[in-house]
Amino acid sequence: MPLNLNAVGSTSEPAERSWSSTDCLLYALGVGAGAIEATNFELEFTTENSAEDAQRVLPTFASIVGAGRGPRTSLGEFDPAMLVHAEQSIELHGPIPTEATVSTTSTVTAIYDKGSGALVRLQGSSVEVGSGRPLFSTGAGLFIRGEGGFGGERGPSSQMDPLPSRPPDEVVTYTTRPDQALLYRLSGDRNPLHSDPVFAKRAGFDRPILHGLCTYGFTGRALLHAICGSSPERFRSMYGRFSRPTFPGDTLTISIWADGSSARFRTENQYGDTVIDAGSLEFS
Amino acid sequence: MPLNLNAVGSTSEPAERSWSSTDCLLYALGVGAGAIEATNFELEFTTENSAEDAQRVLPTFASIVGAGRGPRTSLGEFDPAMLVHAEQSIELHGPIPTEATVSTTSTVTAIYDKGSGALVRLQGSSVEVGSGRPLFSTGAGLFIRGEGGFGGERGPSSQMDPLPSRPPDEVVTYTTRPDQALLYRLSGDRNPLHSDPVFAKRAGFDRPILHGLCTYGFTGRALLHAICGSSPERFRSMYGRFSRPTFPGDTLTISIWADGSSARFRTENQYGDTVIDAGSLEFS
Repeated sequence: MPLNLNAVGSTSEPAERSWSSTDCLLYALGVGAGAIEATNFELEFTTENSAEDAQRVLPTFASIVGAGRGPRTSLGEFDPAMLVHAEQSIELHGPIPTEATVSTTSTVTAIYDKGSGALVRLQGSSVEVGSGRPLFSTGAGLFIRGEGGFGGERGPSSQMDPLPSRPPDEVVTYTTRPDQALLYRLSGDRNPLHSDPVFAKRAGFDRPILHGLCTYGFTGRALLHAICGSSPERFRSMYGRFSRPTFPGDTLTISIWADGSSARFRTENQYGDTVIDAGSLEFS
Repeated sequence: MPLNLNAVGSTSEPAERSWSSTDCLLYALGVGAGAIEATNFELEFTTENSAEDAQRVLPTFASIVGAGRGPRTSLGEFDPAMLVHAEQSIELHGPIPTEATVSTTSTVTAIYDKGSGALVRLQGSSVEVGSGRPLFSTGAGLFIRGEGGFGGERGPSSQMDPLPSRPPDEVVTYTTRPDQALLYRLSGDRNPLHSDPVFAKRAGFDRPILHGLCTYGFTGRALLHAICGSSPERFRSMYGRFSRPTFPGDTLTISIWADGSSARFRTENQYGDTVIDAGSLEFS
């Protein structure tokens, strides 16, 4: 079942999505907030009624509530076992409210032919319903194995400069849990690739892999705490490319090089393999 | 602010409560299902779309969805920091559906004067809306420190025979996580005693304590897997008394003595202190 290549340029009808304070807490726990390495259990992100600060929302929550479903359906039918998240960007226009409804318009911006598969790029823009205030924009790249070879453009290689050769300015290590994906998936992505060993085998993995956006969320927490002083309002944008799958239970080490109001980063697993590369952050 | 002693015998109006498949999954993860000790991640309890069995519901989920709120409000005003869960029973009339609405009638059956506090006993009975089918009954004992000394009856001591002197037939050990309460509380009990260090200090604890019903849920999983062959339909009823608080991160060891269709059990922490005593299970 080939992809619908004519989907490029198609823009979805605005789709509404609401979230509650509880959804934000569940997401925060899903990306490891409150775990043992966390300072004071990150209570401002993991509870709503602490004597500490009022509840705040992790910036990377945008990556899930900003994901439009419309354009994905316009892509036609493909085997979901063949889909892996390849890249993700978020751009925030301010702190994310603990409760809101957004209207998101999404566009398929490109379908590249990478040979072994197709890279589909989606862009979404989310506006708060009621206030009309733009909250965030998101970009996702989905790699669909087995859907390449259709004679399309290969697309640009990463334009990113190599990481600085000096030692990183900050290094943060977080350990994911063996059941991390079981919790993360309750935030919305129920693809059994992340929970079902039988399905994962069919997709060519020894066992279920962690959601790319979960690894992204762990990485975003490291950036937030190490670079933005734990203040979501200082976190402007984040881009990363998923270069290798991670598995529940993996240890993630995020190395960060800061330069003015930008930072570059890389996330590695416990074997020293890079799992997110070409990482960049803008902050204030 | 004294308790309203006239609440004894008062029965609430039936209150409805609904739950979804996701609520069951969140509860299962909250009581440790899917963690590293778990056989195959307990996928029938922690996912809804596995190639393994269809989704099933942990029996102890009854302890939260069967808890009526009506009678508690008839008790009058008291400081929630002074409330600790003292005992809990559940009786199941069959497996709990993954989605349902129940109508629960609750009664305050007793308020005992224990000197240092009051023991309030509540009983609830839950019937599925639509089918009219009785699903479960629950009983809870709440100990409210500082509300004793009103000259009431002390109530019966535990009538339970001592545990057998022979070695236990089954011993199960589970480790709770440092952030266990942060996850468990998303199933409904947001008392900051379980998440906020400042509030916990005011209540006289060095740090937040784990929900008694979370310890109860871990214990119920041990009973389900060790005694009932992981089959919820074999799990009939469970009673336990919370003899000491547990803390997130504690290791729980459940010792079980089976005898025909009954079992007795005790839950201890990593120091050998009993945290649930007088435990009993009926199964088939």
